[in-house]
Amino acid sequence: MSLLVTGSMGIDTVETPHGKAADVLGGSAVYFAFGAAPYTDVRLVGVVGEDFPPAMRDVLASKNIDLAGLETRKGSKTFRWSGKYTEDMNDRDTLDVQLNVLAEDAPKVPEAFKDSDVVFLANTHPALQRQMREDLPKAKLTVCDTMDLWIATAKDELIKTLGVVDGLVINDGEAKQLTGCKHVVDAGEAMLNMGPKFVVIKKGEHGAILMTGSNVTAIPAFPTKDVKDPTGAGDSFAGGMLGYLSTQSAYDDAALRRSLLHGTVTASFTIEDFSLGRIRSVTKADIDGRVQRFAEMLRIE
Amino acid sequence: MSLLVTGSMGIDTVETPHGKAADVLGGSAVYFAFGAAPYTDVRLVGVVGEDFPPAMRDVLASKNIDLAGLETRKGSKTFRWSGKYTEDMNDRDTLDVQLNVLAEDAPKVPEAFKDSDVVFLANTHPALQRQMREDLPKAKLTVCDTMDLWIATAKDELIKTLGVVDGLVINDGEAKQLTGCKHVVDAGEAMLNMGPKFVVIKKGEHGAILMTGSNVTAIPAFPTKDVKDPTGAGDSFAGGMLGYLSTQSAYDDAALRRSLLHGTVTASFTIEDFSLGRIRSVTKADIDGRVQRFAEMLRIE
Repeated sequence: MSLLVTGSMGIDTVETPHGKAADVLGGSAVYFAFGAAPYTDVRLVGVVGEDFPPAMRDVLASKNIDLAGLETRKGSKTFRWSGKYTEDMNDRDTLDVQLNVLAEDAPKVPEAFKDSDVVFLANTHPALQRQMREDLPKAKLTVCDTMDLWIATAKDELIKTLGVVDGLVINDGEAKQLTGCKHVVDAGEAMLNMGPKFVVIKKGEHGAILMTGSNVTAIPAFPTKDVKDPTGAGDSFAGGMLGYLSTQSAYDDAALRRSLLHGTVTASFTIEDFSLGRIRSVTKADIDGRVQRFAEMLRIE
Repeated sequence: MSLLVTGSMGIDTVETPHGKAADVLGGSAVYFAFGAAPYTDVRLVGVVGEDFPPAMRDVLASKNIDLAGLETRKGSKTFRWSGKYTEDMNDRDTLDVQLNVLAEDAPKVPEAFKDSDVVFLANTHPALQRQMREDLPKAKLTVCDTMDLWIATAKDELIKTLGVVDGLVINDGEAKQLTGCKHVVDAGEAMLNMGPKFVVIKKGEHGAILMTGSNVTAIPAFPTKDVKDPTGAGDSFAGGMLGYLSTQSAYDDAALRRSLLHGTVTASFTIEDFSLGRIRSVTKADIDGRVQRFAEMLRIE
């Protein structure tokens, strides 16, 4: 199955208690693509400015990521984000955001990508996500993410978008903000009522919850000590999840439950180093080994 | 295997967003006993004042809880605690504490209880826990709990106590406070180095982590919507865990991992009603049914 992601690409500066990484490759679509690349070729649709360093393009090109949908826009500047994590790394402050090219027209989906089967609409304005969904009419599985900004400023648009996707991946704080529910399982039910067939609520170091019409599956995070930089954990989680699903013939509850392990393990690699330092060199064998250990940890008989 | 618990018994007044329960039976040893009672007879060692209502004694006596170690002390008053949970029930404020009889001499372990095999030293002053441990020399498995107060005021005593127990059950905030570690897995390793063969770190709605010298097992909480009152969740968790272990012939990693499911499920019943409202009527069949569903949820193949 062909897999397409569209979302932000940018240049990040991140500080955590373990150090600082300045002017590194980041963005939701980028982390997703690196999370999914061990499973399948990834079609990336995004836009950067003419300041986007060739070395960053080379990092993307070094993977099985198809850059036919990567637009480098003349006269525009690349999206930039700078943030600092708290001491326990469960929270972060955004120090600076320069939307730049992300505030302009969206990138176009190349004709060659229009037959994509599995689509991830990474975090961006929900109206734009819906437009992308319309540009990809053959998608068999469409999943979106969102963020607190759109819940606060474009909630009606977001609810419309949830009506045209199969799945939603969202963090626990956003789930509560969107639904007004105080407990994640209540929030999950409320979001399922907005349209998606499944919802994944990400809880960072506390794991994730998958809810479908008939099942609730809660799993912990993969227990790790080696956390250097949580940036991109959620996007690479979605990458591992949809990367795995793109190798499956059905998207039933059993496959979704398995994909939850793959997303979790993918994120556990991402956070072991700054930026793409660890995830860019992760192999399918690395993933499968840790998924097996994780499944064994959870198999209690 | 015979099971003994010693810890606080008291009269609680609790307020949550779902209502209020005034002057109800509570205390760490009580919640533990009700958590363990579906598995085995429970020997309770505790002390109350002469104001302890006969009706509360009847509630205890209605279960397979042996009250030979329950002292009703003349001229003393029963421990009282009053608290109010926050809107999301992840935190609570203590509104009032009256130590009363808990600030006096400890209760005595009856001769008939001195052959107890499995012992839970519920939260109290760590020096007192150590004295109780000495009074129960035949114990094959001794597990203790603690609280932030003792970590702050009697840390050296607590560390000595950790040197004479087999297991520690502690919540995540306390684990970090005790060790100075920012991550629970680091904290777990530091606590294992203080003596216990295993440590269980409770994370409330986010599940629990079991660490032994050779294994780390993280599990989520049992996903539930029906949370009315979190009081006693941690103590009944320990009750379910040790109740289950008291039915086992070995306390190896496999048994400890299974006991984690039993503790989690027991706590999931406790929080479904105020005080002992739900847990007092839970049967072994109720527990086993939910444990099986929980294990199946976690068995992802």
